[in-house]
Amino acid sequence: MKLVTFDDGLVGRLADDLVLELDTASAREFFERGGSVPETGRRFRASEVRLRAPIVPKKFFHTAGNFREHHDDLARVNWSHPVNKGIVFFQNVDAIIGPGDPVVYPAHLTNELDYELEMAVVIGKPGKFFGAEQAAEHIAGYLIFNDITARDIQRREMESGVFSFSKAIDTFCPIGPYIVTADEVGDPHDLDMELRVNGQVRQKSNTAKMSVTIPELVAYHSPQVYSAGDLITTGTVAGVAASTDDPFAHYLKPGDVVEAEIEKLGVLRNRVVSWEDAYGAPWAE
Amino acid sequence: MKLVTFDDGLVGRLADDLVLELDTASAREFFERGGSVPETGRRFRASEVRLRAPIVPKKFFHTAGNFREHHDDLARVNWSHPVNKGIVFFQNVDAIIGPGDPVVYPAHLTNELDYELEMAVVIGKPGKFFGAEQAAEHIAGYLIFNDITARDIQRREMESGVFSFSKAIDTFCPIGPYIVTADEVGDPHDLDMELRVNGQVRQKSNTAKMSVTIPELVAYHSPQVYSAGDLITTGTVAGVAASTDDPFAHYLKPGDVVEAEIEKLGVLRNRVVSWEDAYGAPWAE
Repeated sequence: MKLVTFDDGLVGRLADDLVLELDTASAREFFERGGSVPETGRRFRASEVRLRAPIVPKKFFHTAGNFREHHDDLARVNWSHPVNKGIVFFQNVDAIIGPGDPVVYPAHLTNELDYELEMAVVIGKPGKFFGAEQAAEHIAGYLIFNDITARDIQRREMESGVFSFSKAIDTFCPIGPYIVTADEVGDPHDLDMELRVNGQVRQKSNTAKMSVTIPELVAYHSPQVYSAGDLITTGTVAGVAASTDDPFAHYLKPGDVVEAEIEKLGVLRNRVVSWEDAYGAPWAE
Repeated sequence: MKLVTFDDGLVGRLADDLVLELDTASAREFFERGGSVPETGRRFRASEVRLRAPIVPKKFFHTAGNFREHHDDLARVNWSHPVNKGIVFFQNVDAIIGPGDPVVYPAHLTNELDYELEMAVVIGKPGKFFGAEQAAEHIAGYLIFNDITARDIQRREMESGVFSFSKAIDTFCPIGPYIVTADEVGDPHDLDMELRVNGQVRQKSNTAKMSVTIPELVAYHSPQVYSAGDLITTGTVAGVAASTDDPFAHYLKPGDVVEAEIEKLGVLRNRVVSWEDAYGAPWAE
């Protein structure tokens, strides 16, 4: 099933060119109710609804270090710290935006805005302290996450051995376009991944390149407790702007359109807009 | 007002030895409704209710570096990284426990369990991108936070320049015993702070020692967006076990009772218990 949130927060499933409304108050409630809720009977043309962020979870675990190519990539340009396995931190659930929503460029805070294509796992069944062999029953689906990052802020934060602000600014967490349930995805360890900026390919990989399995990853972080609907990302792949030979030629600018695509999970498209275009006036404190 | 959550999630205000129930579904809803909700008329003896975590916020900002004495303290023992101003990360809202709840010692994950006394600010009015001169209208109250930390895990995490797991394990976030509203606290920049383990004073300071004001701190992090009821901590003070000359003589052990006290905000008391005492059986994966 492709689970969507649309218009004013309605929930439905996408079936070809139709959206069939589901009788639940939110995608998070859908998972709290075990992923089994009836349809309301209302149907909409997919072309006539506005897709929203497919879920706002209670917790948004952000992991990294699982694709070793991202570590190798950043090591080559002497990035701040090694990207070891096991990295985790919490993403800002109030920075989540959906497909088509603008990423607002806060030029008063950063001039090194980067992209990071990631797949995220949607947790269905709550739980804690479980092993990899139990993890499958906690995994309900998958979606695309574009981890927008202010590299200049991140480097400054990492001097203290921790970062968050650089990835937590308002509008920095595009997810979507929908949640694809685990049964429809099948094996999540062989999905092509590609991120494009204005049509130019910047990141290209495959989930097969992860050095841990998704059940291992989900189990590893379970001492931090899962609630139904939680998201846990799997980390990005090679090709972020900061890892290129000319980062400033690759960092995002107002007007850029970023397309984050993962096989079977769709395309998440967001435009970067200036503060003035978003708010109708230049930044002023 | 002292705002409490009690028994099965009822909300009330504590007045001397009585709890007067308020007509709201949760403390978070209390703030979403602007902090003005009627009493239900039901009254309870304070001695006969069981206090719970006073709120489970949408977001739990954890800041550090505001008390320079904590940086100096850790620099003296060559801790991993400097504790610069501006540090922030998100705490695990599913690891929150209340006054009297046990901190469960996960001996299969750590043997360096530390305490950290902190004051946290409760956000009333939502907002983003505001300055220090607007911050006061967003501040609704204060509470005590004991930032339980597995130092061995934290040091390992910091090799990658980010940490979270070490502070996010189940039961690692005691808060309470209640929220004291801003009007009752008055000036939050002159409150005595003291943390005791089994009656022995380990941390002793005063909020006057912060190197930023609370409005400055709240404004600084506002690009990350505030929702009503969010918590933002102000960082710990000197005296954590890891900063002592003999950390292993000071790390927490099962059976220890930790009392975190801040003037006007009460005493938050939690016992550390072993896995076996918590779950009736030794840890087994």
